[in-house]
Amino acid sequence: MPEVIYVTGGARSGKSSYALRLAEPYDQRVFLATAEAFDGEMQRRIDKHREEREGQFVTVEEPVFIDRALRNLPEGSGVVLLDCLTVWLGNLMHHLGTEAAISERIAALLAVLETPPCDIILVSNEVGMGIVPENAMAREFRDLAGTLNRKVAERATQAYLLCSGLPLVLKK
Amino acid sequence: MPEVIYVTGGARSGKSSYALRLAEPYDQRVFLATAEAFDGEMQRRIDKHREEREGQFVTVEEPVFIDRALRNLPEGSGVVLLDCLTVWLGNLMHHLGTEAAISERIAALLAVLETPPCDIILVSNEVGMGIVPENAMAREFRDLAGTLNRKVAERATQAYLLCSGLPLVLKK
Amino acid sequence: MPEVIYVTGGARSGKSSYALRLAEPYDQRVFLATAEAFDGEMQRRIDKHREEREGQFVTVEEPVFIDRALRNLPEGSGVVLLDCLTVWLGNLMHHLGTEAAISERIAALLAVLETPPCDIILVSNEVGMGIVPENAMAREFRDLAGTLNRKVAERATQAYLLCSGLPLVLKK
Repeated sequence: MPEVIYVTGGARSGKSSYALRLAEPYDQRVFLATAEAFDGEMQRRIDKHREEREGQFVTVEEPVFIDRALRNLPEGSGVVLLDCLTVWLGNLMHHLGTEAAISERIAALLAVLETPPCDIILVSNEVGMGIVPENAMAREFRDLAGTLNRKVAERATQAYLLCSGLPLVLKK
Repeated sequence: MPEVIYVTGGARSGKSSYALRLAEPYDQRVFLATAEAFDGEMQRRIDKHREEREGQFVTVEEPVFIDRALRNLPEGSGVVLLDCLTVWLGNLMHHLGTEAAISERIAALLAVLETPPCDIILVSNEVGMGIVPENAMAREFRDLAGTLNRKVAERATQAYLLCSGLPLVLKK
Repeated sequence: MPEVIYVTGGARSGKSSYALRLAEPYDQRVFLATAEAFDGEMQRRIDKHREEREGQFVTVEEPVFIDRALRNLPEGSGVVLLDCLTVWLGNLMHHLGTEAAISERIAALLAVLETPPCDIILVSNEVGMGIVPENAMAREFRDLAGTLNRKVAERATQAYLLCSGLPLVLKK
């Protein structure tokens, strides 16, 4: 049975770098990027991450239908690194809008995690340890992200919380 | 000597569910709910949590004087699950206002924890790991919550930080 | 080789108190304070911390050039406790402004950590586990703080995350 490895952490906590290190031992690595560049700040982050993995991964970009991307990986893929779940969730809210449509996509991802095509490393963000946001959409996002993270971590065979670049083992 | 079990975590981190699981082995469970519904969003959260524990707990609702509620539990109570400390702290700020009156109630809770009437499970929230809030009242709440959490955790015999539904042991 | 001990945590998580406890066994303790009082709230925090350590430390105040302060400790210092890195980072942004000047100071600190003059305890703040801030400067600060924390923690021989006054071991 393939591994499902969940890596979470705060902003700049080293979660993406840690996930890249976890992917190192594999042959035929796929990087599933969920980010879309809405502005220059975002574009710089995407470019910086792309540089870090140059030549080591086949990159697949899919902002919304990641379940389909995961079911249609290149033949012989050894591992897929999905980065990241919270950006994907933001895309779902932006592109799909309704709760029902969002839930459907999350259910489709969870279904893939039940029978993964190969080892999967999923990067997420911890966004719920600050003060309650005043903005209602931020509160909704925070709640959905927390619930998504719990569901994915529940299905994971390994789970890590990164803090200052160092991993705390949540499950192993 | 009864156990004092402290469970904290961010929003939607699974802390309430974890606390409910910790309470499962007990007979005669009491749920001490501190939440008051100020709006529809709050009411939905309260209802959702009430559903999850239907028929398994005697529910006591007390937004402010939780020390008295804890000293007057139904005869033969095996465990009391208090959910949650940060909502209670918000109630203290809203209903009592002055620092002296708030400190008095916190001291009264801590006194109960020195000689607990039965095993107590206390749920709290981690609210201090984001950026410093611009709002002065949010900063005050964050500081008070952090201090309250430390005082309760200091008296606990077990303490857990939930992240993505999974517990990190702080003390055991 | 001297120890480099990194202590992080959220607001009021007990990180400063924990760092003070770690410093207790040493003779000739130096406290390197980075905070400047911009307002009354800040002054009260500074005063409260100063009270906690009265008579136990030689206090050195340096808001910006902490690398020089660390290289010029009093003769025979047994340990230096730096509190804290995120306040220092805020000072760098306020006093120096440009990214190049900030990077230079951070590089100078990291160089000191490669050949520490004595055991060093560094306190920082976890600020990246909340929702993405709407304020661009807050986002920049959060990113810089996360990156700084990773670089310091990488060079540390021990690292701890405080939560509710209790330490989680990140590295030891």
